[in-house]
Amino acid sequence: MPSYRRRDGRACDQTREIKIQRGFTNAPGSVLISSGDTVALCTASVVDDAPDWMKRDGNVPTRGWITAEYRMLPGSTKQRKPRQDRPDGRATEIQRLIGRSLRAVLDAEALGPRTIYLDCDVLQADGGTRTLCVSGACVALIDAINSIRASLPNPDVYPLRDSVSAVSVGIVEGSPMLDLCYVEDSAAEVDMNVVATGKGRFVEIQGTGEEHSFDDEQLAALLALAKKGTARVAALQREVLADAWPF
Amino acid sequence: MPSYRRRDGRACDQTREIKIQRGFTNAPGSVLISSGDTVALCTASVVDDAPDWMKRDGNVPTRGWITAEYRMLPGSTKQRKPRQDRPDGRATEIQRLIGRSLRAVLDAEALGPRTIYLDCDVLQADGGTRTLCVSGACVALIDAINSIRASLPNPDVYPLRDSVSAVSVGIVEGSPMLDLCYVEDSAAEVDMNVVATGKGRFVEIQGTGEEHSFDDEQLAALLALAKKGTARVAALQREVLADAWPF
Amino acid sequence: MPSYRRRDGRACDQTREIKIQRGFTNAPGSVLISSGDTVALCTASVVDDAPDWMKRDGNVPTRGWITAEYRMLPGSTKQRKPRQDRPDGRATEIQRLIGRSLRAVLDAEALGPRTIYLDCDVLQADGGTRTLCVSGACVALIDAINSIRASLPNPDVYPLRDSVSAVSVGIVEGSPMLDLCYVEDSAAEVDMNVVATGKGRFVEIQGTGEEHSFDDEQLAALLALAKKGTARVAALQREVLADAWPF
Amino acid sequence: MPSYRRRDGRACDQTREIKIQRGFTNAPGSVLISSGDTVALCTASVVDDAPDWMKRDGNVPTRGWITAEYRMLPGSTKQRKPRQDRPDGRATEIQRLIGRSLRAVLDAEALGPRTIYLDCDVLQADGGTRTLCVSGACVALIDAINSIRASLPNPDVYPLRDSVSAVSVGIVEGSPMLDLCYVEDSAAEVDMNVVATGKGRFVEIQGTGEEHSFDDEQLAALLALAKKGTARVAALQREVLADAWPF
Amino acid sequence: MPSYRRRDGRACDQTREIKIQRGFTNAPGSVLISSGDTVALCTASVVDDAPDWMKRDGNVPTRGWITAEYRMLPGSTKQRKPRQDRPDGRATEIQRLIGRSLRAVLDAEALGPRTIYLDCDVLQADGGTRTLCVSGACVALIDAINSIRASLPNPDVYPLRDSVSAVSVGIVEGSPMLDLCYVEDSAAEVDMNVVATGKGRFVEIQGTGEEHSFDDEQLAALLALAKKGTARVAALQREVLADAWPF
Amino acid sequence: MPSYRRRDGRACDQTREIKIQRGFTNAPGSVLISSGDTVALCTASVVDDAPDWMKRDGNVPTRGWITAEYRMLPGSTKQRKPRQDRPDGRATEIQRLIGRSLRAVLDAEALGPRTIYLDCDVLQADGGTRTLCVSGACVALIDAINSIRASLPNPDVYPLRDSVSAVSVGIVEGSPMLDLCYVEDSAAEVDMNVVATGKGRFVEIQGTGEEHSFDDEQLAALLALAKKGTARVAALQREVLADAWPF
Repeated sequence: MPSYRRRDGRACDQTREIKIQRGFTNAPGSVLISSGDTVALCTASVVDDAPDWMKRDGNVPTRGWITAEYRMLPGSTKQRKPRQDRPDGRATEIQRLIGRSLRAVLDAEALGPRTIYLDCDVLQADGGTRTLCVSGACVALIDAINSIRASLPNPDVYPLRDSVSAVSVGIVEGSPMLDLCYVEDSAAEVDMNVVATGKGRFVEIQGTGEEHSFDDEQLAALLALAKKGTARVAALQREVLADAWPF
Repeated sequence: MPSYRRRDGRACDQTREIKIQRGFTNAPGSVLISSGDTVALCTASVVDDAPDWMKRDGNVPTRGWITAEYRMLPGSTKQRKPRQDRPDGRATEIQRLIGRSLRAVLDAEALGPRTIYLDCDVLQADGGTRTLCVSGACVALIDAINSIRASLPNPDVYPLRDSVSAVSVGIVEGSPMLDLCYVEDSAAEVDMNVVATGKGRFVEIQGTGEEHSFDDEQLAALLALAKKGTARVAALQREVLADAWPF
Repeated sequence: MPSYRRRDGRACDQTREIKIQRGFTNAPGSVLISSGDTVALCTASVVDDAPDWMKRDGNVPTRGWITAEYRMLPGSTKQRKPRQDRPDGRATEIQRLIGRSLRAVLDAEALGPRTIYLDCDVLQADGGTRTLCVSGACVALIDAINSIRASLPNPDVYPLRDSVSAVSVGIVEGSPMLDLCYVEDSAAEVDMNVVATGKGRFVEIQGTGEEHSFDDEQLAALLALAKKGTARVAALQREVLADAWPF
Repeated sequence: MPSYRRRDGRACDQTREIKIQRGFTNAPGSVLISSGDTVALCTASVVDDAPDWMKRDGNVPTRGWITAEYRMLPGSTKQRKPRQDRPDGRATEIQRLIGRSLRAVLDAEALGPRTIYLDCDVLQADGGTRTLCVSGACVALIDAINSIRASLPNPDVYPLRDSVSAVSVGIVEGSPMLDLCYVEDSAAEVDMNVVATGKGRFVEIQGTGEEHSFDDEQLAALLALAKKGTARVAALQREVLADAWPF
Repeated sequence: MPSYRRRDGRACDQTREIKIQRGFTNAPGSVLISSGDTVALCTASVVDDAPDWMKRDGNVPTRGWITAEYRMLPGSTKQRKPRQDRPDGRATEIQRLIGRSLRAVLDAEALGPRTIYLDCDVLQADGGTRTLCVSGACVALIDAINSIRASLPNPDVYPLRDSVSAVSVGIVEGSPMLDLCYVEDSAAEVDMNVVATGKGRFVEIQGTGEEHSFDDEQLAALLALAKKGTARVAALQREVLADAWPF
Repeated sequence: MPSYRRRDGRACDQTREIKIQRGFTNAPGSVLISSGDTVALCTASVVDDAPDWMKRDGNVPTRGWITAEYRMLPGSTKQRKPRQDRPDGRATEIQRLIGRSLRAVLDAEALGPRTIYLDCDVLQADGGTRTLCVSGACVALIDAINSIRASLPNPDVYPLRDSVSAVSVGIVEGSPMLDLCYVEDSAAEVDMNVVATGKGRFVEIQGTGEEHSFDDEQLAALLALAKKGTARVAALQREVLADAWPF
């Protein structure tokens, strides 16, 4: 069925080459992650305080929080992307997705009253930056949590219940395919981002018809590709974390 | 299976009472829409000019554009919600969803070089405001387009290919259910917003595990409820538009 | 003397039809008020805390405060009015007028340390929005205060000393007239907004020559019309509040 | 009747000592004006272009415009006033008043397509800054217009029809009085700012009950004081402008 | 060597006429300072509280702070300079320089937990505004400190160790010269601002090649001029402060 | 004389290990530069248009421009640095320094009407970020200019007259030293940043006494260290650019 030929010769159910480098800088978690020409730096910083909104009305928080920020560096795109005063609509949407995805596997009580910031800065953009950042942020987050393991409220309860990984899928010229690069993404009729846990359960599904709509059969094909892709990233995360793997 | 008893006695696959009032004010499209205690005013205004970004580099646009803005009025919530003149993260996400949903059925060429603004102001909030606004904005949009029908580029091509309607679904205490009110929404383990065309095709699926994840079976149950709900709203849109119905 | 013929056939000392609907939404005070084609939603919300500026330097406030916000919804005007990042000069001026007008009859001690927000959102604009909002906000304020009557510091002292109502007057083509619609307002040589108490005393007089000046005689004629108009609105306020009337 | 004794021994119908110094800096109009301890620098700058809003849709303006900006320097008050680069509500209201007051006597056609900016910076504040700025800005404006007289569209038509001057009046401890200093202003039950033309016609009347209301008799007393005060300032303006007086 | 003839006939090592007027307004320190046609008002205000950043984490400050703000009034330049929402890059740089320069001679402990604001507003600009403001702010600061002398922590320790003065120097058409006016500054190949203590030690050196570079010999010539100029200003500061001189 | 022992055992006139990696991402110029633990990504992007301010009043520019932006990523410091989308005072000062330094060697006519953006994002901060960014941006700039060499106005005129490099120097515990790390910088009595051309001429000298002042002898010692340091960096720049070296 998939009649579309990908520019880089990939099969429709194949991701680009994904690389994950831990410890890129000295932050508690610091991960340089790439999928083909898309490259992001994901750092995880620990602030030993719950966020202000947890402390209103004299409340003394016992739970923690994870929040994310996402930006594209100006030099990350072919045409320089002007730096923005504050996150634009797209960046706002993406950083909310990243934070929500990681909080879905968080045991907030086990983290204790602290805030972990996931800063995802895209160094080079070629499609799929948001899902790549979810996957990279998860590795940075695990490194950061491991770095404070001694000071967690309960040494026997790890503050994450599972890892998460994410991929983009889409329909291009009628063919469902996995891990779209920028050119494919621009041409896609349907665009979907899927976040899943290491055990393969859904955390987030965001599917959008771009000036198109889609039916049940197409949805099923996309979800199947997404499951394959998130599983592949999850395996790589586990591999690069090796004996730091907490689950 | 659904063991959860809804506060208002509704069945799990039942929406609240939905009312749509056209011509609430004098704007080309002006719709007061409510589902239970959630009430929104959706107006559609026509600006006879394409957006600036279409005109860069001396480009003379022939196509049109639809854009949306979403806000909650300060008095719309029990605790007064401080006025946010500039959309916060949530409002940004929602207004992007509304605009994207309606553009999915737009024939931009047939609209001609003009911009239609969909302003969705929530007057009273009790859950499901974003999907209610998609549904109300669609009716306002049709009224607005009908008001300029004489000046469209091609009288034989209507600028929309179909209507769109939207509902929220979610899993509360393990039970999938349709059109969540605020109390249900706050307790939901999974929250999903679905936008569909009048013909029943998907335009947008946004499913999120709220500190939870979900599996294929749960996803299927939610999508089935969403199909039922969007079809019900679509029928009501058709009914209130009556002989103004363009399709 | 008045040679000017009004478009809608009104006499110079006649207001448009004024309607006041209480309980439009669930906020403690929620009033839909209209004068002809000008329509505004005025809600009153109670926050059980004095404003921050009363609490500086460890001060524990015993008095309350009333503040107002005013906006025009984008769809309220023929040409869509772009939503603004923050109130523009005109909106700032108007919301300060609304707050000041209601505070003029406030017994701050009798309200206790709480803040009442008067949110005035113009749904449709055809002249006289600011004075209509003062009149509508007064009704919403009374409903809101009545809703917290049991928790006032002193059950025997009502926190308002009187009601307030407001009208616009102006000189168009040399003729003084009452309650100007947009077309009249645009053509007015002198424009005046007057706020008065239920007992008929002045609270605020703002008269402006629009590229014109005016003399004592013209001022007298305008004030006479304003007294007539504010009395008429005051009577209507009393009527719609009926047994909720506190004075 | 006036039982109140003024701190500085002034009669109730007496202004403080008013000084006007032209040419304080090199701007086309540059006036240092003071009334007692209130001191402001009013400069008038000419920009040889109509404002942008006059040029929309390819319009070629033939008329001019006057606009004003008002700020208090941080060191102008006893307690340092934090710098507000963007005007707060009060400054917005005041600068709109200043601009409107001078535009009331403007012959926009006779000015030609240019913009005159009136920048009013309060160097020391002791009550009555807004009316002092109107009076000072008028002198700066005349100096600025005189400096471009050779390039006006029509040498025989002066772009102002008259001068304007302004004073504050108010009721303190029941007594109407003229030109309130800060201490009097803070205690005033009614506060009124009046702008008049050199010929004595009203341009603007802004009267406000500060937690009080007022009746016709009090209004009449205030207006009488205001007429006396504006006439006195008008005479001084004429005196300092001497042979530069255009009317 | 200096072949360049200055427009105003000055020698290359000569400043313009410098005037310092203390007590221009009622602020604790209020200095009108001018060098030729450059005129600035420098006020010093005392806030009896350390800045917020000193009080974080429950810290109780014993030391004080000096901070500066710098703006050019809109009428200070030939072409009106639009007022800005917040300090632009240049103003930010300058106000940081002013604050840093005065803090270099501050004994923070001896000042006690208070903040002195130095507000430097340029009334007329003809080159050298930033260095003139440093010199003027120093005089205002001494007046302000003298006004609170009775309430300093230790009456025997003056909170400043020395005065500071500043001048601009530059190379124009190959000639090093002192105190550049605007026309010279615009043409300068090298531009340098030097701040020195009353005893002649350097506090700050900021030298910049404007599309040019410079060598050791040129640097030496500029520094020699700067020493001469700062000494001259320091002498004048001492003279105008006379018996208020604290050192 | 230098009694201070550096933590990392360096001699006082020794820089940390400096590494320059070209082509880190696909931008026309993309340089990862580090000095010890300070790491920055400097990209150079070419926009084929002169900046807007060159085009005012219908001007058709023939010259080009270089501008710079500087930020520290949130994860670059031990304590996470809250993201500042809009540059704070320090970042403003630094990005102005970077742009000015490179423009000092620019032949604007030879660049033609285009703008080169130098984006300097600090990935890890351990002192000396601003000077490292100047040095890295110079390499990125040369790579970017080489990438458009074919389309320069005149193939025989290279748009840069020389390279630039920069180092920080300072006085710590009385000892002048080169290339301060964060701990040394925090303790420095005098802090100086020096930018020089490849030929060794000064482009910028910014020396600041941090709560201290300094004399001629100290200045001379600092300048000598700076000359040594900038020459060392210049040699490295030449080496990494090798046959891409344009001078």
